[in-house]
Amino acid sequence: MFLAFLCITIGANAQWQSLFNGKNLKGWKVVGGTAEYQVEDGAIAGISKAGTPNTFLRTEKEYGDFILEFWFKVDEALNSGVQLRSHLTDGRVRGYQYEIDPSARAWSAGIYDEAREGWLYPMTGNPAAQSAFIHNDWNVARVEAVGGRIRTWLNGVPAADILDAQDASGFIALQVHAVYSEANVGRKIYWKNIRIMTEGLEYETLPETGIAQRNCVPNTISEREAADGWKLLWDGKTTEGWRSHKGPEFPDKGWHIENGILVVEKADGAESGNGGDIITKEKYRNFILSVDFKITEGANSGIKYFVNPEINSAEGGSAIGCEYQILDDAKHPDAKLGVSGNRKLGSLYDLIPAPDSKPYRKGFFNTATVVVNGNHVEHWLNGVKLLEYERNNEMFNALVAYSKYKNWINFGNFESGHILLQDHGDQVMYKNIKIKEL
Amino acid sequence: MFLAFLCITIGANAQWQSLFNGKNLKGWKVVGGTAEYQVEDGAIAGISKAGTPNTFLRTEKEYGDFILEFWFKVDEALNSGVQLRSHLTDGRVRGYQYEIDPSARAWSAGIYDEAREGWLYPMTGNPAAQSAFIHNDWNVARVEAVGGRIRTWLNGVPAADILDAQDASGFIALQVHAVYSEANVGRKIYWKNIRIMTEGLEYETLPETGIAQRNCVPNTISEREAADGWKLLWDGKTTEGWRSHKGPEFPDKGWHIENGILVVEKADGAESGNGGDIITKEKYRNFILSVDFKITEGANSGIKYFVNPEINSAEGGSAIGCEYQILDDAKHPDAKLGVSGNRKLGSLYDLIPAPDSKPYRKGFFNTATVVVNGNHVEHWLNGVKLLEYERNNEMFNALVAYSKYKNWINFGNFESGHILLQDHGDQVMYKNIKIKEL
Repeated sequence: MFLAFLCITIGANAQWQSLFNGKNLKGWKVVGGTAEYQVEDGAIAGISKAGTPNTFLRTEKEYGDFILEFWFKVDEALNSGVQLRSHLTDGRVRGYQYEIDPSARAWSAGIYDEAREGWLYPMTGNPAAQSAFIHNDWNVARVEAVGGRIRTWLNGVPAADILDAQDASGFIALQVHAVYSEANVGRKIYWKNIRIMTEGLEYETLPETGIAQRNCVPNTISEREAADGWKLLWDGKTTEGWRSHKGPEFPDKGWHIENGILVVEKADGAESGNGGDIITKEKYRNFILSVDFKITEGANSGIKYFVNPEINSAEGGSAIGCEYQILDDAKHPDAKLGVSGNRKLGSLYDLIPAPDSKPYRKGFFNTATVVVNGNHVEHWLNGVKLLEYERNNEMFNALVAYSKYKNWINFGNFESGHILLQDHGDQVMYKNIKIKEL
Repeated sequence: MFLAFLCITIGANAQWQSLFNGKNLKGWKVVGGTAEYQVEDGAIAGISKAGTPNTFLRTEKEYGDFILEFWFKVDEALNSGVQLRSHLTDGRVRGYQYEIDPSARAWSAGIYDEAREGWLYPMTGNPAAQSAFIHNDWNVARVEAVGGRIRTWLNGVPAADILDAQDASGFIALQVHAVYSEANVGRKIYWKNIRIMTEGLEYETLPETGIAQRNCVPNTISEREAADGWKLLWDGKTTEGWRSHKGPEFPDKGWHIENGILVVEKADGAESGNGGDIITKEKYRNFILSVDFKITEGANSGIKYFVNPEINSAEGGSAIGCEYQILDDAKHPDAKLGVSGNRKLGSLYDLIPAPDSKPYRKGFFNTATVVVNGNHVEHWLNGVKLLEYERNNEMFNALVAYSKYKNWINFGNFESGHILLQDHGDQVMYKNIKIKEL
């Protein structure tokens, strides 16, 4: 039995195919830009060039499920990546990218959705993989793209793990990123030992690792999320579970659902002046709430929690509760009001400012997370903690007493409350509204 | 040996003397007021009366060191007590009182300094003794007054323990408290089984108990305090260890020392406008600071910590630091300013209000305590915690950003700092300035 097993394994290893012959660029072609690629000492060298957008050396063939391995060595000044299951549309290469990032950010082996959704798997939560990068020398990359799951490794360290449904197949491509200064022209990135396996993957995929998996399939709960206690707070299709903060029905205007996205419609920018805020029908006590949001230019909205719709049911005005502020800090005037930036994106509105250096991704969906565990509350943005506070104590009450909320009895101290999405008369998109009760 | 010891013990027990013969008031006389006392069923009954100040039935003899036991039963509407080592001066009975307090406060067996210093040992820190009181029935009291130490028990539960040097001897007296409503006239308190021992006390005093001891001898460190790490921050006599916040010397005006009391002199009520603030020469990091203060009518002062005298050394103005506010809430206008009462006595000035229901004792010395342990800080008054907060976090900084301190960089977040007493141009008295470094 043992010998038979060995034979199968050796047989499976034999299925690797080289994508690069070590001598020339047969099987590859340049798309998207005009940076140059050449073969040097058995490696492909990509050379940064002024005045061109991102350039890609793509495989002529397309690949669906595969395991891909390659070596890379990159100039410290460049950013790069390797496209997976990608396509050329409207002259641009789009799709999953194995990030190559020698900068201090160190997000190599993260997954970026090139010219489409942006960061699918940033590396903020995986310091082990961040420190696995080798500067100014060869790194070994591995990708497993099997069905709706893509996993990456960097020098043997598990790096990224996503579920996604956008592309089942496409080409592989080596990126030479656009450069924006004369000093960065003519710099090089090298790839070699590029090999792929498309058969017998069931014998070659690596075991489960301990890293976090990110489910990028909109408005779904993955197996792992379900096992971990996550539930959809919005089904992606209907208004089920939500109502106006002013009554039992969902607002008949001001909101619509479109391709799995819940849209607050543009009106006159007034607070709850069009369709009005919406709240969950249920109340929540201890939870992790995760909401993806995308704002339009100059927009204002917010995610509130510990909301009691009874205490501000008069016409107009948003319902009262702790607010994770959603704002275009650059263009909305409220960003300059308040105290110490406590009305900017991610802040506990009018109370505790989020740091200015937050990882906001302009033009993309961003993930807001609110953690409530008894009196302890945290605000997160894209996997980075922005702020935390304790409520139901002298300091919280003293802070509230200075704020807009000073006249609301017991503000923020309720044991439980509804969750609210705010209509502030600006177009804002929401999706992937999920909750894990603690 | 065992038998011999027993004999000694029995011999010692034989030394109890009755102070009340069970039949009449021989050996006692009424002083201080005109409430009446009579003998009922082998007990002395004190009867509350309208229009009289506190009345006392005192022993004709005086007692120095003793153990005293008595039974008492009190009407729920009355307050009473038993005087120890007391004296009659200017027509008033003054001195230590074993408190009798059937009210919800439940401070029976606490030690009150009648017509003199007020509460020496309130019962806030001793819930076991507070719950030992029996309503509407007999209670058994015990007092040990030996040398400079007085201890009390209530129904066998250790209650109070003070060190004091005011009186080495005096009379014992049974109080009928003044009453202020018609409904409380004619109510009764009973005492019986009143016995005292003045010899062989060394065999009869009870072992050490676990309760806290309060050292009431001004500007001293008791043996127990020393063992616990307490030190005097002021010696009660000189300016040693203190200086102006504006320079190396102690202010040449605005402050004086008188009978073990450090006095801020009355000027024009301006902030640091006369002698100016004084600070410790040393800096402190983690500590419990205990300061007794007494304010005059309408006065303002304060105890500051984490003070850096470098950052406000210009002429005028108090040095910057976290402030335990000292204020006559009733008469000083600042009590009505600020937000939610955050400029009242005991508050973290302009930041976190102390509760209105604080145990302030008008006209007496009060004990302010500040506990600093890393980022955790507490303000206490007379043994009751007023507020607590955590510094060096988003919420503390957000609160500071709303306050008067918004422009002081890193306000309240220093690792250590000087301790300051504020000259606000009003007469305020300080003593018993002690610190325990943690």
